[in-house]
Amino acid sequence: MARALLTAADVKGAWAIVPTPSKEGASDWRATDTVNVDEAARMVNGLIEAGVDGILSMGTLGEAATMTLDEKLVFMKTIVDAAAGRVPVFVGTTCINTRDTIALTRQAVDIGATGTMLGVPMWCAPSVDTAVQFYKDVAEAVPDINIAIYANPEAFKFDFPRTFWGQVAEIPQVVTAKYIGVGTLLPDLAAIKGRIKLLPIDFDYYGAARMDDSIDAFWTSGAVCHPLVSTTLRDLVVQARASGDWSKAKAFMGRLAPTAAPLFPNGSFKEFSTYNIPLEKARMTAGGWMNAGPCRPPYHLCPETYLEGARTSGRMWAELGKALEAER
Amino acid sequence: MARALLTAADVKGAWAIVPTPSKEGASDWRATDTVNVDEAARMVNGLIEAGVDGILSMGTLGEAATMTLDEKLVFMKTIVDAAAGRVPVFVGTTCINTRDTIALTRQAVDIGATGTMLGVPMWCAPSVDTAVQFYKDVAEAVPDINIAIYANPEAFKFDFPRTFWGQVAEIPQVVTAKYIGVGTLLPDLAAIKGRIKLLPIDFDYYGAARMDDSIDAFWTSGAVCHPLVSTTLRDLVVQARASGDWSKAKAFMGRLAPTAAPLFPNGSFKEFSTYNIPLEKARMTAGGWMNAGPCRPPYHLCPETYLEGARTSGRMWAELGKALEAER
Amino acid sequence: MARALLTAADVKGAWAIVPTPSKEGASDWRATDTVNVDEAARMVNGLIEAGVDGILSMGTLGEAATMTLDEKLVFMKTIVDAAAGRVPVFVGTTCINTRDTIALTRQAVDIGATGTMLGVPMWCAPSVDTAVQFYKDVAEAVPDINIAIYANPEAFKFDFPRTFWGQVAEIPQVVTAKYIGVGTLLPDLAAIKGRIKLLPIDFDYYGAARMDDSIDAFWTSGAVCHPLVSTTLRDLVVQARASGDWSKAKAFMGRLAPTAAPLFPNGSFKEFSTYNIPLEKARMTAGGWMNAGPCRPPYHLCPETYLEGARTSGRMWAELGKALEAER
Amino acid sequence: MARALLTAADVKGAWAIVPTPSKEGASDWRATDTVNVDEAARMVNGLIEAGVDGILSMGTLGEAATMTLDEKLVFMKTIVDAAAGRVPVFVGTTCINTRDTIALTRQAVDIGATGTMLGVPMWCAPSVDTAVQFYKDVAEAVPDINIAIYANPEAFKFDFPRTFWGQVAEIPQVVTAKYIGVGTLLPDLAAIKGRIKLLPIDFDYYGAARMDDSIDAFWTSGAVCHPLVSTTLRDLVVQARASGDWSKAKAFMGRLAPTAAPLFPNGSFKEFSTYNIPLEKARMTAGGWMNAGPCRPPYHLCPETYLEGARTSGRMWAELGKALEAER
Repeated sequence: MARALLTAADVKGAWAIVPTPSKEGASDWRATDTVNVDEAARMVNGLIEAGVDGILSMGTLGEAATMTLDEKLVFMKTIVDAAAGRVPVFVGTTCINTRDTIALTRQAVDIGATGTMLGVPMWCAPSVDTAVQFYKDVAEAVPDINIAIYANPEAFKFDFPRTFWGQVAEIPQVVTAKYIGVGTLLPDLAAIKGRIKLLPIDFDYYGAARMDDSIDAFWTSGAVCHPLVSTTLRDLVVQARASGDWSKAKAFMGRLAPTAAPLFPNGSFKEFSTYNIPLEKARMTAGGWMNAGPCRPPYHLCPETYLEGARTSGRMWAELGKALEAER
Repeated sequence: MARALLTAADVKGAWAIVPTPSKEGASDWRATDTVNVDEAARMVNGLIEAGVDGILSMGTLGEAATMTLDEKLVFMKTIVDAAAGRVPVFVGTTCINTRDTIALTRQAVDIGATGTMLGVPMWCAPSVDTAVQFYKDVAEAVPDINIAIYANPEAFKFDFPRTFWGQVAEIPQVVTAKYIGVGTLLPDLAAIKGRIKLLPIDFDYYGAARMDDSIDAFWTSGAVCHPLVSTTLRDLVVQARASGDWSKAKAFMGRLAPTAAPLFPNGSFKEFSTYNIPLEKARMTAGGWMNAGPCRPPYHLCPETYLEGARTSGRMWAELGKALEAER
Repeated sequence: MARALLTAADVKGAWAIVPTPSKEGASDWRATDTVNVDEAARMVNGLIEAGVDGILSMGTLGEAATMTLDEKLVFMKTIVDAAAGRVPVFVGTTCINTRDTIALTRQAVDIGATGTMLGVPMWCAPSVDTAVQFYKDVAEAVPDINIAIYANPEAFKFDFPRTFWGQVAEIPQVVTAKYIGVGTLLPDLAAIKGRIKLLPIDFDYYGAARMDDSIDAFWTSGAVCHPLVSTTLRDLVVQARASGDWSKAKAFMGRLAPTAAPLFPNGSFKEFSTYNIPLEKARMTAGGWMNAGPCRPPYHLCPETYLEGARTSGRMWAELGKALEAER
Repeated sequence: MARALLTAADVKGAWAIVPTPSKEGASDWRATDTVNVDEAARMVNGLIEAGVDGILSMGTLGEAATMTLDEKLVFMKTIVDAAAGRVPVFVGTTCINTRDTIALTRQAVDIGATGTMLGVPMWCAPSVDTAVQFYKDVAEAVPDINIAIYANPEAFKFDFPRTFWGQVAEIPQVVTAKYIGVGTLLPDLAAIKGRIKLLPIDFDYYGAARMDDSIDAFWTSGAVCHPLVSTTLRDLVVQARASGDWSKAKAFMGRLAPTAAPLFPNGSFKEFSTYNIPLEKARMTAGGWMNAGPCRPPYHLCPETYLEGARTSGRMWAELGKALEAER
């Protein structure tokens, strides 16, 4: 039986991007069955109890590149079961071609995932035509899946231009997007005509929400450092919109923004992208709320000074969370 | 039983890079079992009968990204069987992580492949440490495989610097490399200390061979347009080296070089890389010697003007081949 | 006698960026004395009568690169005299080194310019230290000049990072900046601590103004296509801020934004930057409000299809201006 | 009276690229008259007595960007007089537009310079058409000047493609080029049809000379560290060509090549380009043969670790020179 698809309006609030927790030894190429299912279930349940509105998983930091197929299926089932229908759960099914992606997406539907956070095959840089056709093909092949466009220009060798957004907005299954930056937000919003809910990153959410009233959701990989930070950000924007007074939300951004800086080596997004996985997992574990575990090969190596920056970022986030607890 | 590994000295002459011939309809995402095994066997046999010295397969134009696992195994077996031990056969086993690559490389060994033409996982741009460790891990896990480093900077988000070459040259399984450009050839040769045979592209072979006497092999995707062009290039360099008179080899390059220009849209390697597969397959089929078949999704779309340039390149190569036949 | 410097708060509203109108034949290298002083005076007077709040000149499209020293002095005097103190007039004094820049800036002060719109020497890409020191040196040498940082990443091989903004904000003479994009606007605003008034481009002004209440000024090269468009944008934002109702300002952006698209060849800022001068001058002349004249060498060549896009952009702007006139 | 132009064949051997020696205090923006004319004359005379075949000056490291016009004229006259017609002297006349370049080039002719080492105005990235027209205009305006194309992709935002070379080769005044890299040397040689003598850098000279017999000259900024290294390189290639035995030349390259590595911070040409001037001047002074003096603003700042690498490079070059003296 066909499932009802979500609409852009159904995507609201704080959407946590989660890692795939791993067992000790997961950095060794000999390791198998590396998913820490207990920690995965605990993580998802804890986020939902803390009030997040949706789960995004198996993107770059979620190690979609480095999990085996069996591990992907185990992890999908684990988090879908843990969520138990309380919030939408999007899993990543990005493969390096259309047919493998379709096969995996069908398995995600069978497991009960709400949607897929889906990037573009990245062996060759895609043209706009190639990227659009890819999403059309997956949507046609798996009509019951909700699709979140995973717009990461470094991972996918693609700058996700306006002409792309205008075309994928016509695909009914495409309901949301893990968006990046705010530099082209307003023109891109004009291109999608309300058909896709664009999710900025938590650090950009305040600015994006002020720019356009349609922005009422965001993605947050920091949530697993301390979820209260993410939900507070969400709630302050709701309050600001209701009251017309943005001063509290702005003041909160003044506390949140400094936690971002040490995550980016030399302030560079490109350099961050090279070490995205080890940096994000180090940040998450340093937050103290969960154990993201070691990174799977080959993305398990990272300069120690970069890692220490990431850990600092995670600790700063967690400290902000603890301060918020005390302020309640 | 452990197989004896090749050495750099074993890699000589014209190494053909081949496509994975496909059946009609292979561009549709519904297609399965897309390998044209008859054409694949005919192609490999024909190349060997024409005198090529080795086979490289399942790189970018070989559609390693877009073949299913089953198709990969079928194709590997087809070409290994067709070669029947007459020349080394390298198959591509590049996956988007270390463990999948190891699993596929083991299957390649079981099938009887001589080696793997192996790129680096390309979801994240690798650091030098990451890239080196990846090759070390695969070599440790599959000690019987010969490895050809597949050095494509656009596909793998990696510029293959000198420090990389110096380190991978220490891995016994690494015997050769599909190399790109000649701008850093001499320093890279100094770094590898004779442990790897670097293969320039056919269009660069004359210059590279003149620069350094150790360069006595090259890769050639044009071979399947008309193999005689590739073997003639090889033989003229052998003769030049023996006689000290390079004039005939140089004159031949003057005939070969113009066939490259129309293959590159607006003269751009980056633009070519976006459409690498459709351009190369169009060139190959236009040569008239084989039928490369349609491209698998999502890399089946290409502007018609670009395709026409590629076809012109293939026809020019084939015409040069026919002229060489007439001159014999 | 030392002049009083402006403060960030003094920079408000619509700041027009103007071309340097040229005489017929100005594209020929034999041409001398190419400034059309009558048109220059008419342009500045017309803008001020139309209500613009400041004049910025002699940037990229203002042909600072291609005017001779004599022409620069003539043009500076012309527009300073035409403005007659009614609005601030910033002239461009960017040279390819510190000492020439200082010499020219001193002449600008002598002529009576309010300030300099100042980029960074662009022969070598500057480091942050180099760029900051450059502005410090000019400010020390010419203490009476107001400085508008001219933040064009393509022209100056510099991405104007947050650490730069934090440092130049400490220089008293630096009061404003021709800023680019909104992607890093909020972090940059945090870095400058209110000491510099950042001017976004007209096309970004609505979004920037919504993001932060401190944004109450913008630069507009379209003003010379029809000034009423620029002043209407300014006034609608003032009204929105007063009323808390942004709907009219947003609706106006919906009319203005489409005029930008045809100005950028293939949607590319990089490609636009190669032909910045001919494209902007073609747009301006096509608006019908002024005659920007031909481009000085070597930047006088441009593909006709690109020029036609620019002219379309200029005509669309002018048509919007005429519609606004009719709506009054 | 019109002078006879050089031909490509007249450009042979080791062409030294020289700095503009500066007096103490030259890094201060208050400094005037910064040329150390005594050291400049001594440098040129010393190079000629040491046997170099030509002088190239006032490029990037020659501080063309940061000298005042008066200083340029003083330096030109100094080195032209010092050379006293013994070897060709090319001075740099690159300005940021066509007309200023023409004016300065005319002054160079009046002073007696043989030619100009001429880059492209770099405010905007030039299209191929713009770059070609620029050289045509200068040649038309100053028919008595010999032109060396100064092909620096970082300084001039231009990648000097084959279509460019094919067109500038038609300009009679263009006789040589400070070329960069060897990656596209053979195709570019095909494009210029023998009309321009392409000069590779000393570090690439061995490889370039082996690739093509027409390569019999090179540029060498290391010459001022110890000229004997440059002339030895030149002579070994002459001997190799005569004998057909390249082994001594190759062995010499094995000694010379390691001196390059510490000059490039993190092995990056782009990073080197940011600090080109301070790095090259530090290298030169460290060689001990001359005193290049401090750098003019704004390019006088450089991280100390980078400078130390450059000094190491200069000392290694000088030590090689001393070893060569001892071996004579």
